[in-house]
Amino acid sequence: MDVDQLRKDLVGLHDDLIRWGLVVWTAGNVSARVPGENLFVIKPSGVTYDQLTPESMVVCDLDGQLVDGAFAPSSDTAAHAYVYREMPEVGGVVHTHSTYATAWAARGEPVPCVLTAMADEFGAEIPVGPFALIGNDDIGKGIVATLRGHRSPAVLMQNHGVFTIGKSARAAVKAAVMCEDVARTVHIARQLGEPLPIAQSDIDKLYDRYQNVYGQR
Amino acid sequence: MDVDQLRKDLVGLHDDLIRWGLVVWTAGNVSARVPGENLFVIKPSGVTYDQLTPESMVVCDLDGQLVDGAFAPSSDTAAHAYVYREMPEVGGVVHTHSTYATAWAARGEPVPCVLTAMADEFGAEIPVGPFALIGNDDIGKGIVATLRGHRSPAVLMQNHGVFTIGKSARAAVKAAVMCEDVARTVHIARQLGEPLPIAQSDIDKLYDRYQNVYGQR
Amino acid sequence: MDVDQLRKDLVGLHDDLIRWGLVVWTAGNVSARVPGENLFVIKPSGVTYDQLTPESMVVCDLDGQLVDGAFAPSSDTAAHAYVYREMPEVGGVVHTHSTYATAWAARGEPVPCVLTAMADEFGAEIPVGPFALIGNDDIGKGIVATLRGHRSPAVLMQNHGVFTIGKSARAAVKAAVMCEDVARTVHIARQLGEPLPIAQSDIDKLYDRYQNVYGQR
Amino acid sequence: MDVDQLRKDLVGLHDDLIRWGLVVWTAGNVSARVPGENLFVIKPSGVTYDQLTPESMVVCDLDGQLVDGAFAPSSDTAAHAYVYREMPEVGGVVHTHSTYATAWAARGEPVPCVLTAMADEFGAEIPVGPFALIGNDDIGKGIVATLRGHRSPAVLMQNHGVFTIGKSARAAVKAAVMCEDVARTVHIARQLGEPLPIAQSDIDKLYDRYQNVYGQR
Repeated sequence: MDVDQLRKDLVGLHDDLIRWGLVVWTAGNVSARVPGENLFVIKPSGVTYDQLTPESMVVCDLDGQLVDGAFAPSSDTAAHAYVYREMPEVGGVVHTHSTYATAWAARGEPVPCVLTAMADEFGAEIPVGPFALIGNDDIGKGIVATLRGHRSPAVLMQNHGVFTIGKSARAAVKAAVMCEDVARTVHIARQLGEPLPIAQSDIDKLYDRYQNVYGQR
Repeated sequence: MDVDQLRKDLVGLHDDLIRWGLVVWTAGNVSARVPGENLFVIKPSGVTYDQLTPESMVVCDLDGQLVDGAFAPSSDTAAHAYVYREMPEVGGVVHTHSTYATAWAARGEPVPCVLTAMADEFGAEIPVGPFALIGNDDIGKGIVATLRGHRSPAVLMQNHGVFTIGKSARAAVKAAVMCEDVARTVHIARQLGEPLPIAQSDIDKLYDRYQNVYGQR
Repeated sequence: MDVDQLRKDLVGLHDDLIRWGLVVWTAGNVSARVPGENLFVIKPSGVTYDQLTPESMVVCDLDGQLVDGAFAPSSDTAAHAYVYREMPEVGGVVHTHSTYATAWAARGEPVPCVLTAMADEFGAEIPVGPFALIGNDDIGKGIVATLRGHRSPAVLMQNHGVFTIGKSARAAVKAAVMCEDVARTVHIARQLGEPLPIAQSDIDKLYDRYQNVYGQR
Repeated sequence: MDVDQLRKDLVGLHDDLIRWGLVVWTAGNVSARVPGENLFVIKPSGVTYDQLTPESMVVCDLDGQLVDGAFAPSSDTAAHAYVYREMPEVGGVVHTHSTYATAWAARGEPVPCVLTAMADEFGAEIPVGPFALIGNDDIGKGIVATLRGHRSPAVLMQNHGVFTIGKSARAAVKAAVMCEDVARTVHIARQLGEPLPIAQSDIDKLYDRYQNVYGQR
């Protein structure tokens, strides 16, 4: 897959953030690693979603420095770059401030795994990462420290929002969509009482099956 | 009604799940029994809603085995198949993780019948079915054990989501739409106090009238 | 304004119910009195919103009997007819089960007048009408008994939903949209504490100004 | 930038209020100062959003008197005019009754700054302005008294709704969109506990960086 195709794909994946209600105005961003190169493609900074084109996407190296593009890269580029440097298995990263997930993040509280769809996709609670300021590697370090060795492809960065990872940018977008969906459902369940727990052994079975059987072969 | 028509109808009915906000990404599915045959048509597994076409729908037998189609059937096919085997009056089945209904399911709590629209359509509370893992007939058994002899065409499967049944796939989709609508309204009512009860005799009158008088003859 | 124009207008006004999220599936209806005649035009029963056309609308007399149309009239026709018989100043009636307003109705609790926009449009709390079964004039009687002499053009029928009235069908639709909007905002305000009251004298000033000054002359 | 361009821009910016769910029916309005003149352009009163055209926008002087246009100006014109008279640095003003922000306003409670996106855009809590009746300069005075010297470009007018200001009309619309977004997220966070605070020194750093670094140069 070449850079031109990734630029096109990123337009559609940013549309998905809008379609599923995860972002407002210019917030949020998706990036994709360029396979076999020390590069990734990411959204430009402060551009509205309906102005995004393949050409507007920017290419950065793994230090987050602009390599190709007419715009400045997303202000979250350093966090994406850190993840790509430290987690070679990651092919895509997504960042949003989606409402319900960010509400859990504001309380610094993980989303408990009380839905079968959550066991399928996340295999565990959705964990909370540290409070970190933008401007250096602190956000990236917090993401990697939380997600390395964790089943969940999503982390709730405290007082901030969601970062998700995936084998591809599309997988990371899916994780962002599912993260908001389960964060919302569990929030609403808890408004009127306590959700029933799912036994760890059942979470394990659901996770294993979904990762290995679901979808088209 | 032949299989080709059912495949077309299912595209429109899956669009209804999106239109009324019952599903995200690839979650959820609708199936329709082929009249007079031991077959049903169902959504393929892991395909996004905007990629669904009549041709992408798959035909299964009542054991849930693929009979015709280019894709693997929905991962929930076994549950649909079990319902068709055990409930010959059922012509359509729908499954969603719609937010408010699933929140009640996460607490294992039925939705009380406190709205006239709910008395019309469901004639009773919306009941909760057992926790069951995917991969065998447990989900199907739980659906049938809960809905057989119950007025409600919808069951909240614990920690999981909603299954609805109907004489046709369209009727099952309607039940899924109405289930989320009343689950949401009753949830919101209960956030600030207790909804007023409706007398059982009034529920009976409303249910009887709606099932026999409403709509075009 | 003749009947053909009213039929066309009603299609657009039903679209407004969808656009502003007040209805699902086939629920809800709008009617318009035919000026100078003992007739009104109303939505057909059990027809989906995207199938509504000017021709599908039906004309009824003030006893709710079908006068012209290919479909059966809305199952709520008797309530509309009663309002037109008893309130000659009313030119339009709307019925919805919009979520937040119906949640207040389920608790039998009026929406307190704590927003300036609510003082403008409703001039008072939005009142609750009695529980009433469909099938005779009980719903119509409850609407008229509650709204006659009340500033509010909207009533929350207990355990049921909203009826609004207006000089025209468009005014009644506006009242239905604003009713849900303020029911939602006041609900959300009350989730985290008590809204501050507005003095009755200020409600009076706002109501008087809005009814007499707002909009184009 | 001339008046014709501002009229066109205002159509798009009013579309943004609809797109991001900040307004219903005819509520809400955006205005833009005409650079170098004692004039501003504003939405006409009581016109629906889908009827707005560049020609329908009206031009007023800084006393709020109509200078050019076929319609009466928005009923909130006096408040906009007062802001332009008193705050020469303001190029755009927006008013909405957006749901979550207005819910905080109904309780007279500021939105605490507990999200990094809120520190970025608002640099502080979103403050509450006084209760004020429409019809004279009281609303304008309340807006200016609250926002002058405050980092926040948004004020929650008690029992009423939101006013935002910006260097341009677009910046004021952005503030209105972000105000509702953070009001909603913080509301939802607080439904299930207390959001974690952000240290004032971190708020200061985030605000400074966002105002000076973010976006395209």
